[in-house]
Amino acid sequence: MKEVKVFAPATIANLVCGFDVLGLCLCEPSDIMHVKLMDEKRVVIHSADGSSLPSDPSQNTAGAPLLAMIEEMDLELGFDLTIEKHIKPGSGIGSSAASAAGAVVAANHLLGNKLPKEDLVRFAMLGEKVASGVKHADNVGPCIYGGVTIIRSIFPLDIISISAPPLYITVVHPQIEVRTSDARQILRKEVLLKDAIRQWGNIAGLVAGLMKNDYALIGRSLEDVIIEPVRSMLIPGFDEVKSKSKEAGALGGGISGSGPSIFMLSQNIVTAQIVEKLMQDIYKKIGLPFHTYVTTINTEGVKIEEVTH
Amino acid sequence: MKEVKVFAPATIANLVCGFDVLGLCLCEPSDIMHVKLMDEKRVVIHSADGSSLPSDPSQNTAGAPLLAMIEEMDLELGFDLTIEKHIKPGSGIGSSAASAAGAVVAANHLLGNKLPKEDLVRFAMLGEKVASGVKHADNVGPCIYGGVTIIRSIFPLDIISISAPPLYITVVHPQIEVRTSDARQILRKEVLLKDAIRQWGNIAGLVAGLMKNDYALIGRSLEDVIIEPVRSMLIPGFDEVKSKSKEAGALGGGISGSGPSIFMLSQNIVTAQIVEKLMQDIYKKIGLPFHTYVTTINTEGVKIEEVTH
Repeated sequence: MKEVKVFAPATIANLVCGFDVLGLCLCEPSDIMHVKLMDEKRVVIHSADGSSLPSDPSQNTAGAPLLAMIEEMDLELGFDLTIEKHIKPGSGIGSSAASAAGAVVAANHLLGNKLPKEDLVRFAMLGEKVASGVKHADNVGPCIYGGVTIIRSIFPLDIISISAPPLYITVVHPQIEVRTSDARQILRKEVLLKDAIRQWGNIAGLVAGLMKNDYALIGRSLEDVIIEPVRSMLIPGFDEVKSKSKEAGALGGGISGSGPSIFMLSQNIVTAQIVEKLMQDIYKKIGLPFHTYVTTINTEGVKIEEVTH
Repeated sequence: MKEVKVFAPATIANLVCGFDVLGLCLCEPSDIMHVKLMDEKRVVIHSADGSSLPSDPSQNTAGAPLLAMIEEMDLELGFDLTIEKHIKPGSGIGSSAASAAGAVVAANHLLGNKLPKEDLVRFAMLGEKVASGVKHADNVGPCIYGGVTIIRSIFPLDIISISAPPLYITVVHPQIEVRTSDARQILRKEVLLKDAIRQWGNIAGLVAGLMKNDYALIGRSLEDVIIEPVRSMLIPGFDEVKSKSKEAGALGGGISGSGPSIFMLSQNIVTAQIVEKLMQDIYKKIGLPFHTYVTTINTEGVKIEEVTH
C-alpha cells in the first residue's frame, strides 16, 4: 500500500497579543511521521523512538482526527502511523498540533488530496481536543497553512494567511510542566474594557506591521496586557528573558502558546543568536534543564517528503 | 496677513469591531474653514452660517487646539477662523474632529508646515476633549492622515495608516441626540474574555481584509459583539437598517462613532445607492428627520484649497 513521510513542524500560538487568534509556523523543530494506508478500517500508531503513546487511537492526538476522517469520508480502509517525536509534548510549541496536522495532511495525500486545507484543520482540531479538552486552531492552523495565520473564527472556521517579513525566532523551552488546561483555568473570565481596547490596538498594529514589513511596528505591538501578566507567573525566568532579550535588540516576544516555552522575534540572525545565548545563561543560572532553538518562519507548513508505492 | 481655506472632512470612528482603535476618512460631508494669521496673540472664531459657537475659544473644539499651539510653540501671533459647518454636530461622523483637525492643519500650513502629522493629531485631540471630555484620536487621526488609520495607542501616540480597496460608504444620520459622553457611560467596564477574543479575531480579520483587498473577509469581519449590542439600542431603526442593507448586498457596517449615524460599506456604487434608498424608506416610515450620504474613502484627509497672501 502507499506510504508517505511528512515533516510536521512546531508552531507558536497567540503571538503575544493575539490570544486564540494568531499563530506562526516554525522551520524547527519538526516531527517526522511515516503514514501507510491499510486495507483494514482502523488506525494503528507506533512510536519510532520508543516513547509511550496511548494505545487507543481515539485517545491519541494523531489517531482521533484519522478516525474522524475514516468515519466522515466513509472510508473502507485505515492508517498505520509511525511517529518520530522531536517536538516535546508539553513544551508549548504545538507538539499535539504537529501530530494531528501531520497525520491529516499525510492521510489526505494518500487519499488523493481531496480535502481542502480548511477541512484538514477541522479534523486536526479533534486532536487538540484530545490533548487539551478544547478545540482550537491557533497551532493546527499555522501548522497546515504555514506562515502566519489569523484564526478569525472557529465556528464557522475562518483562517486567513497573512504575509510577514523575514524574522528570526529564538525559542527556549524550560523543562517545567504547564498544562494547557491549567494555563486556561487561571485566566479571568472577564477583562477590563480598557485592557481589551489596548489589546485590539496591538493586534491591529501587529497584523499591519507584519503585512507592511514594518519591524518597528511589529516590535511596538508585541504587548499583551491580558494573558501574559497572569500566565508568565507560571514560568520561572520569564521577566528576565523578556527584558534582556529586548535590551539585546529583539523586537519582542512572549509566551509561546500556554507555555512554558518563551519565544523572541529578531530582525537578524545575529541578534537571534545573542538572545539564544542569554536565554541559556538565564536557565543555567536558575538550574532548570532547557532546550533552545533559533529558527525562521516556515511558510510551507506540513511538508510531504517522499512517497513510496 | 496670510490666509488659507481648508476642507475638513467627516470621519467614521470604530469601524464596527475597532472601538477606539480604527477610523476612516470620508470624502463627504466636509466643513470649510478660512483661517488667517493675526498679529495679536489670541484666537477669534466666526461662524459663516450664523450658527452659535462658544465665544470663549478655549471652549471651542477648533479654538482649544490653536490656543495650545500658540502656547507650546511660543508664538507671538494668533488666528482668525471662520467656520462653514457642513458636518452636523452630534451626528457621530466626526464633526468636532473636523473643526479641530482643520484648524490645526490650517495653522500649521500658515506657520510653514513645521509640525509632523503626529503633533497635529496631538493638538487636535485637545478639541475632542472639549467636545466630549475624552481625548481620543479615532476621528482626528483619519481626518488628518486620510484613509484608514489604526490608533494603536494614544499615550504614546501611535497612528498607523493602512491601505484599503475602493469602498462606497452609505451614511444615514437620523436626527436624534446621542451624546458621546452618554454613549460611553452605558458601556460596561468589563467584558467577557470570550467576547474580547472574538472581537480581536474580527479586528485582525478586518485589518488583513482591508490590506489584502479581500471584500468578503472585510464583510465577515464587520462584527461587533461588545459595543454595538449596547449602543444600538439608542438608535431607532438600527437593526432594520443593518439587516436590510446586508440583504441588499452591503458588506456590512454599524454605528458610526458613538452614533446616531449608521454607515454601511459596499463594493460598488449601485449597492451603496440601493442602501441609501432603503435607509431613507426606513426613517420616513419611523418618522424621524434624517440626512443620507453616499461617498468614498478620502485618502488625503484635511485638504488645503487656496492660499492668499
